Amino acid sequence: MNSEKLILVTNDDSVSAKGIHALTEVASKFGKVVVVAPDKPQSGMGHAITINDPLRLNQIDLFGEVEAYSCSGTPVDCVKLAIYEVLHRKPDLIVSGINHGENSSTNVLYSGTMSAAIEGAMEGISSIGFSLADYEPNADFSATKYFASIIIEKALNSEFPGGVCLNVNVPKLKKSEIKGIKICKQAHAFWADRFDKRKDQFGRSYFWLTGEFSDVDQRPDTDLHVLKEGYVSVVPTLYDLTAYDKLTHFQNWHL
Amino acid sequence: MNSEKLILVTNDDSVSAKGIHALTEVASKFGKVVVVAPDKPQSGMGHAITINDPLRLNQIDLFGEVEAYSCSGTPVDCVKLAIYEVLHRKPDLIVSGINHGENSSTNVLYSGTMSAAIEGAMEGISSIGFSLADYEPNADFSATKYFASIIIEKALNSEFPGGVCLNVNVPKLKKSEIKGIKICKQAHAFWADRFDKRKDQFGRSYFWLTGEFSDVDQRPDTDLHVLKEGYVSVVPTLYDLTAYDKLTHFQNWHL
Repeated sequence: MNSEKLILVTNDDSVSAKGIHALTEVASKFGKVVVVAPDKPQSGMGHAITINDPLRLNQIDLFGEVEAYSCSGTPVDCVKLAIYEVLHRKPDLIVSGINHGENSSTNVLYSGTMSAAIEGAMEGISSIGFSLADYEPNADFSATKYFASIIIEKALNSEFPGGVCLNVNVPKLKKSEIKGIKICKQAHAFWADRFDKRKDQFGRSYFWLTGEFSDVDQRPDTDLHVLKEGYVSVVPTLYDLTAYDKLTHFQNWHL
Repeated sequence: MNSEKLILVTNDDSVSAKGIHALTEVASKFGKVVVVAPDKPQSGMGHAITINDPLRLNQIDLFGEVEAYSCSGTPVDCVKLAIYEVLHRKPDLIVSGINHGENSSTNVLYSGTMSAAIEGAMEGISSIGFSLADYEPNADFSATKYFASIIIEKALNSEFPGGVCLNVNVPKLKKSEIKGIKICKQAHAFWADRFDKRKDQFGRSYFWLTGEFSDVDQRPDTDLHVLKEGYVSVVPTLYDLTAYDKLTHFQNWHL
């Protein structure tokens, strides 16, 4: 029993999303699973933490035999509460997702799913975020479950370097159509943001964030590129944001 | 007039914080300033964006002659709305802060102040986040204003590389006690998070996030290290999180 792996499952779409149930099912094949996830959707919350409000944590039975808790906070809050108030130790692996929607390219920064994995890396825990390029609540997670199983098994049985987590994105294709898994780079793309400007019932303006995603990166080995080619993308993702190759440039500013 | 620089000022402590008024005063020496900042405190919001709620934007006159808007969203929302709905063009510089409290080390990931600057970098705009290691609402910003002035002037008149922004932290010292400015690296430190567990009026548990910051990084040229020595720290900060030096490691997993 002592050698059984302890795996924390979280996400940003909340405990009621189909994707986290799919991921819990996969993770349960590899050890003891505990779920700590938001009690409501937290998409786009990035690396937010709750510092000005109290946090609630409630045990729930939405996951069959699996011990599970809903949390009133963000995905990063869930990871912190899980380690320090639920598990009382660091798990062997954190898996986050399966997100309903792609988290490739710069979306990694906005993504609650990936921020949970980055928080895991900061704690020195092997961590992986999984996302499927399908926003539908009833998305078909079968191909993602297949690839998640391969990646989780490898992660638990290989050296997982410190300071990084993995950002896994799966294209919206049938399993038989997916060509394989590629380790690749975060594409330099951005949202050319537009806002949908409307008037409320009092005639006051409000805005909905919308936008078009612009892929400006011509490199052949980016996540956006390999996803388009029909591969699962895996980007090793840092929490150290230092631009090491720009230190000399700024030193030459002689501030 | 066409050569006048356009500078966007934002923060995460809200339009009513002393720090953003200090920064607006400094920025106004270098061009036309527009303020777009949160209408309420947004500390710890990281790179969160508002996708499930509408956003409000209201012109305010808290900044004297300076055109200013309060926004119902996060710091990153403020940057997006400023570019696409207020300025209708990319400013020459984005400055964020002056934050009431330090954003060194891994705090860069939780910081709304720095996420606004990172969002600027993603848009291809020279961007700088400023933080003072003093959480007091009535903190003394005079030393930070002095160093911000030096850094802003240099940023506007030098090549600012794409893909990075600057994370500037100022120690809580008198200007005469500060030894200078050092370009340095994000320290690998983390919050050993503890939660303060309490009971509400109905006997139900709730948690406040607290913790102790653990500096585990022995390198001499980290932001935490130079701040401790009495310097202003400047970390060139990326939005590309790819762990380039770990690509081969994970390719050798043969997924």
